[in-house]
Amino acid sequence: MTTTRLTDALRIGRGKVDLSAYDSRSTPGFGGTKRDQPKALESLAGPLSDNQERLYAGAVAGTSDRRVLVVLQGMDTSGKGGTVRNAVGLLDPQGVTVTSFKAPTADELAHDFLWRVERALPQAGEVGIFDRSHYEDVLIGRVRELADPAEIERRYDAINAFEQSLVDSGCTIIKCFLHISPDDQLERLRARLDDPTKHWKYNAADVDERLLWPRYQEAYETVLELCATDAAPWYVVPSGRKWYRNWAVAQLLAEHLGDVAPEWPKADFDVEVERQRLDATADVGH
Amino acid sequence: MTTTRLTDALRIGRGKVDLSAYDSRSTPGFGGTKRDQPKALESLAGPLSDNQERLYAGAVAGTSDRRVLVVLQGMDTSGKGGTVRNAVGLLDPQGVTVTSFKAPTADELAHDFLWRVERALPQAGEVGIFDRSHYEDVLIGRVRELADPAEIERRYDAINAFEQSLVDSGCTIIKCFLHISPDDQLERLRARLDDPTKHWKYNAADVDERLLWPRYQEAYETVLELCATDAAPWYVVPSGRKWYRNWAVAQLLAEHLGDVAPEWPKADFDVEVERQRLDATADVGH
Repeated sequence: MTTTRLTDALRIGRGKVDLSAYDSRSTPGFGGTKRDQPKALESLAGPLSDNQERLYAGAVAGTSDRRVLVVLQGMDTSGKGGTVRNAVGLLDPQGVTVTSFKAPTADELAHDFLWRVERALPQAGEVGIFDRSHYEDVLIGRVRELADPAEIERRYDAINAFEQSLVDSGCTIIKCFLHISPDDQLERLRARLDDPTKHWKYNAADVDERLLWPRYQEAYETVLELCATDAAPWYVVPSGRKWYRNWAVAQLLAEHLGDVAPEWPKADFDVEVERQRLDATADVGH
Repeated sequence: MTTTRLTDALRIGRGKVDLSAYDSRSTPGFGGTKRDQPKALESLAGPLSDNQERLYAGAVAGTSDRRVLVVLQGMDTSGKGGTVRNAVGLLDPQGVTVTSFKAPTADELAHDFLWRVERALPQAGEVGIFDRSHYEDVLIGRVRELADPAEIERRYDAINAFEQSLVDSGCTIIKCFLHISPDDQLERLRARLDDPTKHWKYNAADVDERLLWPRYQEAYETVLELCATDAAPWYVVPSGRKWYRNWAVAQLLAEHLGDVAPEWPKADFDVEVERQRLDATADVGH
C-alpha cells in the first residue's frame, strides 16, 4: 500500500516542533481508506512473522544479538493499549515483552530514573514494548514538577546517552508519539463515560490532566526537539483515526524488523549425518 | 463447532494412564475438518478478547484478583512454540506473559525447584503461559536422573500442594499435555532437517532424547496419574495435527476465561458529574 517508507514519512526532523501543525486525523503513507485497512494489516502479518522469527532464531543460534524496542507515548486516550492489541498483536507472543510503566514505586524512586527501564529492556531476539517509558520522567515529571528543573534538564541528555548506548549494543529503537488533538480526546473520554464496559478505563484524574493540555504539548514538543536523534528518531503517528494508528505502528515495526532481521542461522551440524542418526531411530517407541 | 465442552472431553480421569491408547491424530470435540479450522479459530477471537479484557479490567479496578496460568508440556516437536504463536496469539499481548523454562541456571539450582516458577506466575488480570514448567523436574529430572529418587517422589506432592494453593488464591490452571506419537516426531524432525529455515530449531541432542522415548512416556504417564487433581486437571491434547492442537488450546482457553472472567467493574465515580466536568473542558487546547 505504501510507495515511500513510513519510517521516512513519519520521522520528525531536527528543529523547532509545533504539534498544532500536525493533523491528528491525517493518514500519511496509507494509500486507501478505512475500508482498506484490514487487508493492509493482514498483508503485514506474514513479513512480520517471518522477520520476527529470524530475529529470534539468530538469538537462539547465538549468531545475532539484535533486538527491538518500541516506545509508545501519547496523551490519555491516544491508544497505547489499542496499539499493543492490534499492531503488536500481530507478532508471536513468545518473542514479545510488554511493560506498562505506572507511577514509580518507592523502590524505583530510590534509583536513577533509568533504572527501572533498564531492567525491562528486551533480550537478544525479542521485541520489547514500552507502554509509557523513561519519557514520563520529562513529561509528567516536567508538567507536575516532580523533580527540580535542573534534574529535568539533565534527563534529556541522560536519555540521549542511554539510547545511543542501547543502539550501539544492537537494539533498534522505534519511538512512537501517538498524536491526538484535544477534540479527539474529548470525544474519547465522552465515549468512555457513555459505555459501562469502558468505565474501568475512566479516571476522574483524567480530566485534571486534560486541563494541563497546553503544558503537556509543550513538554512533548521539547522531547521531540531534544531527543529525536539519528540513533533513535521519533515518529509522530497521527492517531485521531484508530485504524490508521494501528496500521502505521505495524508498518513501522515491519520496516524496522525487515531492516534488522538476520539471515536464517546456518546449521552447526552435518545435515546428512543427522539424517542417518534420525533414520536409525525410526522404530523408537514401537 | 462444539456441543460438549472441550474441557470435559480432554480432561484426563483418575487412574492408570496408558498414553499409547491415545490417538495423537484424533480431533475430539471438533465438528469439522482442517478446512473448517480457520473459521473456528476466528470465531474464538471475539469471546477470548472480551473475556480477557474483563479479567484485566477487574484487576485494574481492584474488584477481581483472578488470573490464569497455561502450562504447556510435550515431547520435542509437539508444538509448544506453535501453540503460543497460534492460540495464545489470539490474546491481547498486554495481558499475557510467556515464560520459556530452559535448563535451570546455577542461581535457580540453589533454590527449591519451584522457586523460579513462583517468580514467573501471572499477576491478577494476566494470562501466564509456561512453555515447559515445574513438570520438567519430574520429567527430564526423572528420566535423566538429575535428582535422587526420593527427591523426585517428593516433588509430585509438592507440585500438587503448590497448585492447590495457587488455585485457592484465585489462579485458574490449564495444564496441556501436547500428545504426539513417535512417528509424528520422526516426521517433524525430518522436516526440520529438510528445511534450512528450520535448522536453528534442530539440535543433535534431540535424537538422544528421542532414544529415551519409552522412559519419557512413562514419566508423563506418572505425572498424569499423580498430578491430575480436581483443582488442577491435566488435558491431553492430541497434537499430531497442528491445526487441531492450535484450535483445542484456544478453545480450552476460551472456556476457562469464560468461566472466570468477572463482570465489567462498576463505575466508582458519578457518571453525570464526570460528564459535566468533562464538558467544562471542551475548549482546552484551543
